Amino acid sequence: MKIVGEKDVLYLKEDLVAYECDGYTMTKGTPKAVVFVKNTEQVSQIVKYLNSVKVPYIARGAGTGLSGGATPLGGEVIISLVRMKKLLHLDLENRKAVVEPGYVNLKLTQSISDKGYYYAPDPSSQYACTIGGNVAENAGGAHCLKYGVTTNHILGLEVVLPNGDIIQLGEEGIPDRPGYDLLGLLTGSEGTLGIVTKITVKVLKNPEGKKTVLAYYDDINDASQAVSDIISAGIIPAALEMMDSTAIEGVEAAAFPVGHPKDIAAFLLIEVDGIAAGIDDQIEEILTVCKNNNVREVKVAKDEAERALWWANRKTGFGAMGAISPDYLVQDGVIPRTRLPEVLAKIGEVSKKYGLRIANIFHAGDGNLHPLVLFDARVPGESERASKAGSECLKVCADAGGSITGEHGVGIEKSAEMRFIFTDEEIESQTNIRSVFNPEDLLNPGKLFPQPGRCAEIKQELKKAEAQ
Amino acid sequence: MKIVGEKDVLYLKEDLVAYECDGYTMTKGTPKAVVFVKNTEQVSQIVKYLNSVKVPYIARGAGTGLSGGATPLGGEVIISLVRMKKLLHLDLENRKAVVEPGYVNLKLTQSISDKGYYYAPDPSSQYACTIGGNVAENAGGAHCLKYGVTTNHILGLEVVLPNGDIIQLGEEGIPDRPGYDLLGLLTGSEGTLGIVTKITVKVLKNPEGKKTVLAYYDDINDASQAVSDIISAGIIPAALEMMDSTAIEGVEAAAFPVGHPKDIAAFLLIEVDGIAAGIDDQIEEILTVCKNNNVREVKVAKDEAERALWWANRKTGFGAMGAISPDYLVQDGVIPRTRLPEVLAKIGEVSKKYGLRIANIFHAGDGNLHPLVLFDARVPGESERASKAGSECLKVCADAGGSITGEHGVGIEKSAEMRFIFTDEEIESQTNIRSVFNPEDLLNPGKLFPQPGRCAEIKQELKKAEAQ
Repeated sequence: MKIVGEKDVLYLKEDLVAYECDGYTMTKGTPKAVVFVKNTEQVSQIVKYLNSVKVPYIARGAGTGLSGGATPLGGEVIISLVRMKKLLHLDLENRKAVVEPGYVNLKLTQSISDKGYYYAPDPSSQYACTIGGNVAENAGGAHCLKYGVTTNHILGLEVVLPNGDIIQLGEEGIPDRPGYDLLGLLTGSEGTLGIVTKITVKVLKNPEGKKTVLAYYDDINDASQAVSDIISAGIIPAALEMMDSTAIEGVEAAAFPVGHPKDIAAFLLIEVDGIAAGIDDQIEEILTVCKNNNVREVKVAKDEAERALWWANRKTGFGAMGAISPDYLVQDGVIPRTRLPEVLAKIGEVSKKYGLRIANIFHAGDGNLHPLVLFDARVPGESERASKAGSECLKVCADAGGSITGEHGVGIEKSAEMRFIFTDEEIESQTNIRSVFNPEDLLNPGKLFPQPGRCAEIKQELKKAEAQ
Repeated sequence: MKIVGEKDVLYLKEDLVAYECDGYTMTKGTPKAVVFVKNTEQVSQIVKYLNSVKVPYIARGAGTGLSGGATPLGGEVIISLVRMKKLLHLDLENRKAVVEPGYVNLKLTQSISDKGYYYAPDPSSQYACTIGGNVAENAGGAHCLKYGVTTNHILGLEVVLPNGDIIQLGEEGIPDRPGYDLLGLLTGSEGTLGIVTKITVKVLKNPEGKKTVLAYYDDINDASQAVSDIISAGIIPAALEMMDSTAIEGVEAAAFPVGHPKDIAAFLLIEVDGIAAGIDDQIEEILTVCKNNNVREVKVAKDEAERALWWANRKTGFGAMGAISPDYLVQDGVIPRTRLPEVLAKIGEVSKKYGLRIANIFHAGDGNLHPLVLFDARVPGESERASKAGSECLKVCADAGGSITGEHGVGIEKSAEMRFIFTDEEIESQTNIRSVFNPEDLLNPGKLFPQPGRCAEIKQELKKAEAQ
């Protein structure tokens, strides 16, 4: 049986190295092969074939994921969707677009911006990441505070189920689809329930106006309070980002320095968009809130070039850590906004305990923290310490009534930490669903849910850590 | 074993009559008993007990549902949640509220409006329907065009599973919960996957301003085109409603007549809300669009009293049909907005074919139609003809690329019609999920999915109808 051409398969060890992990590099495994598919039918046939020979498999887009969702345990076939990269249909009148899963996120906005539209979810990797991967991880981004994460922008999916069946979920932009919400269930299921082969997304009309504020603080608690006060004032900015001093040190040493003062404790980057007439009032209110919270300096971007620079500085924040540390581990916790100061203090304690610097980049408006644990993998034991410190940061978030991931997913990285926030019954409800779709666990095995072994290990480590 | 008191159980035939159906009155069944519960633990214990004796059961709120979701087939125990009606917790700083399932929808807005907040989903039955029922049916309402249906406002649920386990879904307003989206899955599952015992909802800040427009049209196609043009202009009104002449005849004969001209073909009721500064511009634009589409007369509500009257007139639209017809059957189809004129013409043909008047009330902005089939149950055969006409209206919607329900759910009424929009594989994916949660089908049996017998029957009827 021949499903794809010879040039569509990689199987040599040297070719497979690039597929041993995705953007989460702490765990690696070698796949059996990588197959590049061109259409839904091929995906369905490959899935049926792999079922018949009981070989596990993983769907993969651009490989920019940050929790190892596309990382092999070893021996899986990777089904690469990067060649399914067409924009299939644009229907601006009804505000939607249909794309293949390998279509790059940013391309969608680029191809409709001249007509006055854009696609809202904007992960920092949007220049490279694919919309299929965004669906798998339910990706977020800086502007998700106002506009919601990926799941809020998906109108329909075509999915190849693990039995090879092709199903259509969702329809013509209907707000309430009858039956169970399989569209929502598949979105964010981290490649464990099916392989998405076609995606209908909402596109939005460009806002009439947009203004961006940068506010420098000497005390990070003042910055946190300003975040709460802005939201309490009834303003929902399009984006409300924070960086602490360590993170600022990184971005200023990297590709897009803004010239932030060297001695500030934190900055807020706040963007307001919407109907032009309302924006100036909101900006005035935001400036007032910033000043009431002891801001050192606050300014509005004077033109589009300045705004773009501020955002480039922010959006390359993770990679920028490379400028101040040989390695870094991105974490992704969520907390109730009002508990920011207390959580930051506890993350500071984790940093001290493990002797590792932790930088903090936040989608502050929705309480989504990204503690970046800086380490040097060449120093024996330091990778392990970084992993433990990362896990403890998530425990801090969970204990504050939050969650272990805001937008990066659980993947292979945080499956044990699922126990921080779910009871056994709650995990069972989910693994039961997985068993329905994926009864032999051939699709993306070992992801998302706690593996009994590793989980016990983590629990013990945490107990020891608490005892210390 | 005693779980509730004696006064908490109804079992006499005369007491059970009121529970033979909900707001959908075309199908009735007598329950074995009705049990009133006061807390989650009681629900869990009753569910465990009923499992042990293999007696089927149904959760019920106010019984205002319009698709028979809470209607017994016969012999079920109804678990009534109306006494679990407390507002448990208000956290306006984080914009959320926690309520019991029997809490009445409108009460939430009433209890926070003085503090400047409200709960957005507004089904027309909101003065009576419970938030638990809204969750089960994923209820909509006039203002869901801008603000989304119930699922967009649910942050967390406590659920008693059919095995009696109590699980918590969702958390402190976290936009992307890890793992599978069980919160989304349970919402709108029409009482077939679990019984919701606690609900955390989003509350919204009252908009700064609000303005309401009423536009009278001589030609319904002009009104339809105005709807499309308003959305195309980039305006998303809070509500964008339409009524046709038959519906207007009904509301003018009922409790809240506005004095609409008797000879118009349709009116649009359009509400804009948001930042005060932007509203006047939007209203200007809407007036222009209306005029460009041959409006006969268009006016802005002069005060809150006039606005309230217009809405009372609209929101009592279904009941108002009682003023012009002994009986009526509400349907609930969805279509792509741009296909309104063609679908209305086809519904007109259905009306002629069955010799029954059909009134149309629409959430026009999101393409959600409510054809109201007027009939007289005392005339032999007329109920059956009304049911068939209703089903054919849904077929028209499905064939136009739409759906068989926008906000009323599938229930017992439209389970056969699920085949209009789902393939066998797609239905199987859903019934598989149901089997995981509800393996013995004791929880709300016979709802949501096609029963093989009835489905074959409907198919045959449609074939015959087409052949005629």
